[in-house]
Amino acid sequence: MALKRMGIVRDYEKIRTFAVAIVGVGGVGSVTAEMLTRCGIGKLLLFDYDKVELANMNRLFFQPHQAGLSKVQAAEHTLRNINPDVLFEVHNYNITTVENFQHFMDRISGGGMEEGRPVDLVLSCVDNFEARMAINTACNELGQTWMESGVSENAVSGHIQLMVPGQSACFACAPPLVVAANMDEKTLKRDGVCAASLPTTMGVVAGVLVQNVLKFLLNFGTISFYLGYNAMQDFFPTMSMKPNPQCNDRNCRRRQEEHERKAAEQHTPEAGQGEEEEEEEVVHEDNEWGIELVSEVSEEELRRSSGPVPDLPKGITVAYTLPTQHQDPAPGVAVEDSGESLEDLMAKMKNL
Amino acid sequence: MALKRMGIVRDYEKIRTFAVAIVGVGGVGSVTAEMLTRCGIGKLLLFDYDKVELANMNRLFFQPHQAGLSKVQAAEHTLRNINPDVLFEVHNYNITTVENFQHFMDRISGGGMEEGRPVDLVLSCVDNFEARMAINTACNELGQTWMESGVSENAVSGHIQLMVPGQSACFACAPPLVVAANMDEKTLKRDGVCAASLPTTMGVVAGVLVQNVLKFLLNFGTISFYLGYNAMQDFFPTMSMKPNPQCNDRNCRRRQEEHERKAAEQHTPEAGQGEEEEEEEVVHEDNEWGIELVSEVSEEELRRSSGPVPDLPKGITVAYTLPTQHQDPAPGVAVEDSGESLEDLMAKMKNL
Repeated sequence: MALKRMGIVRDYEKIRTFAVAIVGVGGVGSVTAEMLTRCGIGKLLLFDYDKVELANMNRLFFQPHQAGLSKVQAAEHTLRNINPDVLFEVHNYNITTVENFQHFMDRISGGGMEEGRPVDLVLSCVDNFEARMAINTACNELGQTWMESGVSENAVSGHIQLMVPGQSACFACAPPLVVAANMDEKTLKRDGVCAASLPTTMGVVAGVLVQNVLKFLLNFGTISFYLGYNAMQDFFPTMSMKPNPQCNDRNCRRRQEEHERKAAEQHTPEAGQGEEEEEEEVVHEDNEWGIELVSEVSEEELRRSSGPVPDLPKGITVAYTLPTQHQDPAPGVAVEDSGESLEDLMAKMKNL
Repeated sequence: MALKRMGIVRDYEKIRTFAVAIVGVGGVGSVTAEMLTRCGIGKLLLFDYDKVELANMNRLFFQPHQAGLSKVQAAEHTLRNINPDVLFEVHNYNITTVENFQHFMDRISGGGMEEGRPVDLVLSCVDNFEARMAINTACNELGQTWMESGVSENAVSGHIQLMVPGQSACFACAPPLVVAANMDEKTLKRDGVCAASLPTTMGVVAGVLVQNVLKFLLNFGTISFYLGYNAMQDFFPTMSMKPNPQCNDRNCRRRQEEHERKAAEQHTPEAGQGEEEEEEEVVHEDNEWGIELVSEVSEEELRRSSGPVPDLPKGITVAYTLPTQHQDPAPGVAVEDSGESLEDLMAKMKNL
């Protein structure tokens, strides 16, 4: 493998030993699955309840003759033809219902390369808040590292975000981070709104997402915690965000405590202890799902709500704000700037 | 169209009236063609002499069952199925031979939406110096705007570049700009070297290329003259470069003079003059091809040559340098910085 000979990756063949779950096999998820398939990933678990429609043809991957098929079935057929060495496990359901959520949890915790072992990474390529929050809840409970991706409704911005439970902000720690559009737009998809879509933006987001996956799994380069893409200005802001000690998700707070304890223990290290903790059995608490908490707030209430925008690096903002009287806006969240000042950005724009 | 309703693009349907030529239907060119097909482009002209190989399956687009077919034939078949409304014109030849170069010139100057009119844009998605220089020569002679794209041999960086003859640096004005790898690597492909490839990097480069094409054709957002992608650090440097008044390409110098004359005339405008100049007949000079000049320097000589690296924005460097005793290194080339200082970059890296 040329990547190895060129000194980029120490052991590229290791890619065959990893299992990745992809939730949402639409404009971003399908291209993500194709890239991982062509990279020679060991196993892909695909989750989607949708069908291929002719209206999807302005995105990459699906073909008109696949219209009417379930997205996971159509994707599996195409991907198997491309690389028959990849193992596929597809689930044609909505992960946010109670029954399916349990099955989704079971599969990401037990559907790894070796049955009974967890997957190596979960990728969120969904287009709605509820599904993202369900993935967040599952991954916090399981201590499962995952990556988020999104494209704005106006199709000209997108982002990826790495979530390591306890170490980086989870999806419930603060309102979701999105790329500042400098336009009066709601950026996370809401029911009943027809979103624009461009294969370009989705291709770029899938590309930087899978690049981050390769860097994470094969241990090369710098892994981005948050990478935004503003297509109007070709601007790519980066940042990272610490978890919120007052996060609504109980398992996020638990993972933060674990992480702090581990960090403290590293000053007085004991042999083998790290490995033992990795094997720790995950206890599933049936009555503690964050998605139920979230559904207390109606779409209408979310739309009406407004509050102060937290201090974020230029080019990044929040999908929405919460009024201070209901809830403190992400107290204690520590934001690390990507080092881009407004002056830098202005100079960049001016020179184009 | 949602993009129109959202105020991003004034007249998206205009996309159907444009013809785009793509030279090189490999890892970047095939995805570029698919994106434009799904965006509803009017006409695509594809140029490639290569065949699909099983070794190409680590890039997007082509499928194993297409191995052995010519790339343009396989691409046309797939793309027609995706969007039968697009007009396709494919040429299975190498544009750098004398006979084919003449035909290539004829088709980009006469194969537009209306036969006899030029295409609206030429995209270079080739992987070698000679083909890039041939496109550069043709576009300078015809005054044809084009965009360059490239992926490094180590597969972890790439770039796109917009060339407007007379207004921005052409491919012969200075050694080609590439993304600084911070590694001891030759970055433009040379014969006999097996390059690494990643569908991720190629997908990102195709995505930002076609995004730039859409912005150029549909007149929205900020068009990038140069956009680099450093996948190791998720760093995307931008810059623009003025043409070299001492460029070796005679037609580049002629276009610069035309551009300066036009700019001067804009101070004392005459009605209708601008339109008349657009219609100007292109005179093809048989004995003035830049590609012949380039072939005077052997691969071996290029490899041995070295010289000072010009002052460029951080993150961008030149593919190679020329020794000062043979040629002045791009005299008079004016570089505009993207506004990123080394300190900014360091701060960005540190925060990840």
